[in-house]
Amino acid sequence: MRWIMNVFGDKWSFTSFGESHGAAIGGVLDGVPAGIAIDLTMIHEELMRRAGKKPFSAEAAPSESGRTLREMGVSARALREPDEVEWLSGVVEKDEGTKDQGQRELLTLGTPIAFLIRNKDARPEDYEWLKHSYRVGHADKVYEEKYGIRDWRGGGRASARETAARVVAGGIAKQELAKKGISIHAELIQVGAETDPNKFAETIAAYEQEGDSIGGIIECRIKGLPAGIGEPIFDKLQAHLAFAVMSINACKGFEYGTGFSGVTQAGSAINHISGGISGGISDGTEIFFRCVFKPTPSTPKAGVKGRHDACVATRAVPVVEAMTALALIQYF
Amino acid sequence: MRWIMNVFGDKWSFTSFGESHGAAIGGVLDGVPAGIAIDLTMIHEELMRRAGKKPFSAEAAPSESGRTLREMGVSARALREPDEVEWLSGVVEKDEGTKDQGQRELLTLGTPIAFLIRNKDARPEDYEWLKHSYRVGHADKVYEEKYGIRDWRGGGRASARETAARVVAGGIAKQELAKKGISIHAELIQVGAETDPNKFAETIAAYEQEGDSIGGIIECRIKGLPAGIGEPIFDKLQAHLAFAVMSINACKGFEYGTGFSGVTQAGSAINHISGGISGGISDGTEIFFRCVFKPTPSTPKAGVKGRHDACVATRAVPVVEAMTALALIQYF
Amino acid sequence: MRWIMNVFGDKWSFTSFGESHGAAIGGVLDGVPAGIAIDLTMIHEELMRRAGKKPFSAEAAPSESGRTLREMGVSARALREPDEVEWLSGVVEKDEGTKDQGQRELLTLGTPIAFLIRNKDARPEDYEWLKHSYRVGHADKVYEEKYGIRDWRGGGRASARETAARVVAGGIAKQELAKKGISIHAELIQVGAETDPNKFAETIAAYEQEGDSIGGIIECRIKGLPAGIGEPIFDKLQAHLAFAVMSINACKGFEYGTGFSGVTQAGSAINHISGGISGGISDGTEIFFRCVFKPTPSTPKAGVKGRHDACVATRAVPVVEAMTALALIQYF
Amino acid sequence: MRWIMNVFGDKWSFTSFGESHGAAIGGVLDGVPAGIAIDLTMIHEELMRRAGKKPFSAEAAPSESGRTLREMGVSARALREPDEVEWLSGVVEKDEGTKDQGQRELLTLGTPIAFLIRNKDARPEDYEWLKHSYRVGHADKVYEEKYGIRDWRGGGRASARETAARVVAGGIAKQELAKKGISIHAELIQVGAETDPNKFAETIAAYEQEGDSIGGIIECRIKGLPAGIGEPIFDKLQAHLAFAVMSINACKGFEYGTGFSGVTQAGSAINHISGGISGGISDGTEIFFRCVFKPTPSTPKAGVKGRHDACVATRAVPVVEAMTALALIQYF
Repeated sequence: MRWIMNVFGDKWSFTSFGESHGAAIGGVLDGVPAGIAIDLTMIHEELMRRAGKKPFSAEAAPSESGRTLREMGVSARALREPDEVEWLSGVVEKDEGTKDQGQRELLTLGTPIAFLIRNKDARPEDYEWLKHSYRVGHADKVYEEKYGIRDWRGGGRASARETAARVVAGGIAKQELAKKGISIHAELIQVGAETDPNKFAETIAAYEQEGDSIGGIIECRIKGLPAGIGEPIFDKLQAHLAFAVMSINACKGFEYGTGFSGVTQAGSAINHISGGISGGISDGTEIFFRCVFKPTPSTPKAGVKGRHDACVATRAVPVVEAMTALALIQYF
Repeated sequence: MRWIMNVFGDKWSFTSFGESHGAAIGGVLDGVPAGIAIDLTMIHEELMRRAGKKPFSAEAAPSESGRTLREMGVSARALREPDEVEWLSGVVEKDEGTKDQGQRELLTLGTPIAFLIRNKDARPEDYEWLKHSYRVGHADKVYEEKYGIRDWRGGGRASARETAARVVAGGIAKQELAKKGISIHAELIQVGAETDPNKFAETIAAYEQEGDSIGGIIECRIKGLPAGIGEPIFDKLQAHLAFAVMSINACKGFEYGTGFSGVTQAGSAINHISGGISGGISDGTEIFFRCVFKPTPSTPKAGVKGRHDACVATRAVPVVEAMTALALIQYF
Repeated sequence: MRWIMNVFGDKWSFTSFGESHGAAIGGVLDGVPAGIAIDLTMIHEELMRRAGKKPFSAEAAPSESGRTLREMGVSARALREPDEVEWLSGVVEKDEGTKDQGQRELLTLGTPIAFLIRNKDARPEDYEWLKHSYRVGHADKVYEEKYGIRDWRGGGRASARETAARVVAGGIAKQELAKKGISIHAELIQVGAETDPNKFAETIAAYEQEGDSIGGIIECRIKGLPAGIGEPIFDKLQAHLAFAVMSINACKGFEYGTGFSGVTQAGSAINHISGGISGGISDGTEIFFRCVFKPTPSTPKAGVKGRHDACVATRAVPVVEAMTALALIQYF
Repeated sequence: MRWIMNVFGDKWSFTSFGESHGAAIGGVLDGVPAGIAIDLTMIHEELMRRAGKKPFSAEAAPSESGRTLREMGVSARALREPDEVEWLSGVVEKDEGTKDQGQRELLTLGTPIAFLIRNKDARPEDYEWLKHSYRVGHADKVYEEKYGIRDWRGGGRASARETAARVVAGGIAKQELAKKGISIHAELIQVGAETDPNKFAETIAAYEQEGDSIGGIIECRIKGLPAGIGEPIFDKLQAHLAFAVMSINACKGFEYGTGFSGVTQAGSAINHISGGISGGISDGTEIFFRCVFKPTPSTPKAGVKGRHDACVATRAVPVVEAMTALALIQYF
């Protein structure tokens, strides 16, 4: 376990870099074998989902047809973000690739895959943000008050923008898992008290009109994972999944199988539910887990100007899938 | 992140070893500075708590006075376990130590601390268990059915007995944290649907009489942790706490701060609750988290002979504290 | 020890990326504290040394005044390489920075420092090199012959060009060590059989005229390192220095203190020479070690067209310093 | 790279523990697959070699027949050491095992293999050594002089006794490599200026009579290693071999292939010599490397009472093999 680095994983090791106010965000994915094809269309789609440019739930799609994404609580800033990926190393374009980015495929070389996404809105000449407040959160404030020193660690990093890099790396992992018959599918199953996906958009819109925000619960299902993945002691599969998912901004909880609600039922009633993991090791059945995302604190009601997502959980769905994929690919 | 080892932590790195059917369980704690005093009385008390020989909750103690521990659902086997720790390296006895184990203190040398706990009941001449079924869980069965190979990885390791080694290592960490003013206190806050600690014992007893089992929720509070602990991206403090706690047998979920129940409330109502962590970094206020333990599947009702704990959550309380301590000590 | 990654170090963790035939080489340096000033002039000078645009030895400088660098065996390709560093993240320009790159200073943010150096000569449209031979070395050939698979791992990576990224990261480390009073100074002490630095240039020139190449020995001295650095068992200081230096292309040996030549002398004659390290731990005296670089195999005599360095050891000097700095900074 | 731990390797991860003055030395070998047979006779033989109870070189054996091991410079203390290994976990005895230790075989369980070797001579009631001088080396002295603090890190660890644990773990690795057709053979090729193995014993005896000591060079050959082992950048195979070997007490240098002596020869003369590694990756031919061991400083001539090895290199031979095996097994 590496405690103090911007690195995830030790087999497909992903290093994330970049501040939201800097030149670029990006990452290096080390350990990917040679000869793997990367479908750039899929990576682009994943980035679109994270940017809120895609409906947040396939099931909810029909009812959304009449709505703009803005009406669904996606911030204008998100819709402007282009998120174009520049590949620096570790890949070459496949010969048969067409010029349309939507169809291009890359081929891995077995060397570190480095990529970046420029921050087009960033104005590097303006460092005022550094001198006063770096992040909305409390950590920076506490740092200064308590220690009298200003440690910029994390300055501009806590922005959810960093998760775009995770989605790129996780997308590569997800493609590779898919080739092995393993699928990862997350979706929003609750927004506030609402559990009917057809009503999520209007629930979110209601909070947004109030200048307020609301949390959500995402459920993720992993199909096709062979039995035998995970270790019996510290490195239990569920521990690694929890670590991966709890590392996403605003995530406040993780549960799998019978989870918290199982506490009220007798062993005889629920012990057949494994959640896909037994003794820390996958048992070959479907794995399902849930995670909860709190409402964003940056709202008009809280005095924060500008437009923000009224429900960050909507855009967290592809990030949950990406982190799950990065956790699972370590075993292959 | 080390994915496939029996090691926890990279600064105070703890390696756990031993099968419940083998000669001994134990561990090596590497990275502990020289000159630290280890209070053996406290380590012994922690092992007693884990063995179910201590009331599981200070608050519940008054009402328990009239009960035997057996009545509280602690298995007879647990009460027999002596759990004597033999220190192999990394420590010397302090000069002023008395001979009473309860008062002895060790002094660390700055070298790896190795210790073992003999399995007194183990009969090394009997290897039959290896040939047929290694663990009650499903993983082994699936291994054989699916791959046709018999991989003993984890054979005898999935036993909760292994957590005794965690309690020893975690106890050393907890002592060191206490010297820095950091306290960790876990307790059982729910058993089945019951949330009144005074009624936990009878709730458990009722399930035991049915030959059944029941789950529980443990809450853990960390006081005195300075602001600034944790990292903003993958290595968020909450992600490491989740990893540590989810690695405990039977744990099915982890949440902190507003957790899952916060989903129904607006941002304006709950955003002042940080749970002690902001942006992945401690903010200097009390940290609290909850985790849920499922009922044991090994019950008379499920056809498993012998006596088992009707509520494993009771004995998990010191293990939650130990893993929390091992997670936090990595930052010091 | 991470066995299969492009990462060096675990405190200041350096990930190197980039193929010599790709878009860029570069790196991510993770773990650098916030608030450190980076002198870009020094980084630039180090890159100039590595590119062979600086005399390879201060002592030899006077006699070189009348020679062009080309006469000293530096290849024309090296002299063309511009090696401009683009900083992607983890740093901001200091307010007082002037526009002249030679004087600019950066300030670290405590976040991962990502940088790249574009491969200006690279022609990404030409992938023919991938289809036939990737590197001059034997590994690729053996791969194909023996396994029938073509693994591009390392394709384009084995080029010494990758060491430019090491020099950038090592330069940052060297600056930080210098602030702590620790200096690292390497120099060429032998070329072929020649040990007089004033004659190195003509010795190299003689081999170059023959279309041949020659090896060299570099000595490195570390001053100001406090006592107590290193660990007594596996992680001995000398083991980490050896690992760092032996990872440089063409390095065939490492020795410190009495080294190989000490074998002929009695203990009573040489045991006062510690080489600055005792029992794996620095003792506060100057550390000195030597490493040997073999001649390049890519010479006209060997049938390889184009101009190559007749003595790669000359350009390895700043790389030895960079790797030494990266090894030592892990302890601070 | 883990900088400050008593751990070697990340796939077969070996943790060494124990002080020479404590209860026991030993180790935990984590990551060994299930179902591997361990030949205890071989482990015992390796420990005998390390203890100096075996002739140090097969080639020299004939001329040694008339000599006692004591005459060959092996200390009386070494000859007394029994080095009996107690296996704590991770293994079971094979059914067909006989009772004779020489023939017993263990079977691995896939769980951490923990073992210990008791220090029979240790007197745990005597802690005086801790208060005054911990080790003969300079590091401790410097610690106290410079910092005014007494850090026992490494106290009792710097003793070469710790290498017995390496020989046990390395022996398991060597057996597994042998099953894959990979052999590791080290031998002493030089003692002082003497390069004729038939004269090593008398050379050593001469130094011993003087109350002095002498160094030696060991050559190690690895046969059968497939092509493709190693990584092209930092984790070059030669860098890992150097790290492994330089971590052995008294080792002052490592070289492979053309090594240091190759410096005087032109590229055209020596570039066909790969030393078995090309570009950091094994090329399928025999790998050979050499390492040098300095004379022990603890001699009568230096005022140290008691009997010591006049040439520690003799007993380092199996340790070089063990560390080489531990380095190589990480790739399988």
